[in-house]
Amino acid sequence: MNKKDIILDAMLELLKEKSTVSISEIANKAGIAKGGIYYYYSSKEEITDSLIERSYGEIIENCKKKLHENDVDALSKFRLLFTTYFNQHVTSEIDTYLHLPQNAELHQKSLAKILTELSPILTDILKQGMEEGTFSCNYPEVYSEIILSVFTFLLDPGIFHWTVEQVRNKLKGLADLLERGLLLPTGSMSILYEQIK
Amino acid sequence: MNKKDIILDAMLELLKEKSTVSISEIANKAGIAKGGIYYYYSSKEEITDSLIERSYGEIIENCKKKLHENDVDALSKFRLLFTTYFNQHVTSEIDTYLHLPQNAELHQKSLAKILTELSPILTDILKQGMEEGTFSCNYPEVYSEIILSVFTFLLDPGIFHWTVEQVRNKLKGLADLLERGLLLPTGSMSILYEQIK
Repeated sequence: MNKKDIILDAMLELLKEKSTVSISEIANKAGIAKGGIYYYYSSKEEITDSLIERSYGEIIENCKKKLHENDVDALSKFRLLFTTYFNQHVTSEIDTYLHLPQNAELHQKSLAKILTELSPILTDILKQGMEEGTFSCNYPEVYSEIILSVFTFLLDPGIFHWTVEQVRNKLKGLADLLERGLLLPTGSMSILYEQIK
Repeated sequence: MNKKDIILDAMLELLKEKSTVSISEIANKAGIAKGGIYYYYSSKEEITDSLIERSYGEIIENCKKKLHENDVDALSKFRLLFTTYFNQHVTSEIDTYLHLPQNAELHQKSLAKILTELSPILTDILKQGMEEGTFSCNYPEVYSEIILSVFTFLLDPGIFHWTVEQVRNKLKGLADLLERGLLLPTGSMSILYEQIK
């Protein structure tokens, strides 16, 4: 494993124990001299940024891989993307860390990153559905961004505090809006809320 | 004017000159002893929170007032809400302040506040349209929250950096999604993007 990953793993381990960690603690845990850490990263902020980049990067890569492996129709891909994405949450330590008030900027950056990186993937799925003739959509890029705004912003537990029932209801409403917006039969998007217990 | 408002006005004036201000500077500008400030507010954070609360509160009140004064059909109210809200931006000093990295938490809070407070107003408009028989909508609350997620999150210039042309395109896509979602004639929602030059 490369040194950068060892440093990130050390920070992740520490975040399981406490919400703020120092460079010295990271160095200690990683078994690297403090000066050695600065050879790879210029600040704690850079380590944190990098950890978040790696965590969300993996999720997005997994989504791409799953979609690449499964040569299915657009609606199946939409469901696959949804289940892949939502069943692999970012390690909850990072999640807790991002929801601390002092980390709001980083949190905001990570939401923007998810939206920006998942949007082209979702857009391709919508375009595939249009080619297949099962979807109709004049603005696939914008529809994708609207869907992802709901997931990253409206449903973010660090910004709003909805009950499970409220989340389920919002996903029902989104499914309804998408079925109408994409001219899909009623129930086509039920995957969005069926998994919410 | 009450003392609290004098203090908030002083802070607003100072924010026009610089991005961070101290309690002493606020006291000086307000013509109140520093100890006097603490009689009204326990910290600078509380003054800032209060200033944002006041700024957004005024906008929301103005929207309510406009809607109350104009007894028109739902689609006209939707347009009225849109134009009232988007033509009165929060004083740009506050906006600049909220977009500083260190103020991300406050920024996030203000976005959540706008969504939470405008959502019932928009929901009422959608329900009115359903009663009038011009709209059809199974989830007026959720539709409102989705619309407001686009405005508060996706179109926030502090989170994403879109060009005017991109903003216009996103609003076209949203208008298209809403026309389909609410079963409205094409073009009914063109007000959303027509004003973007």
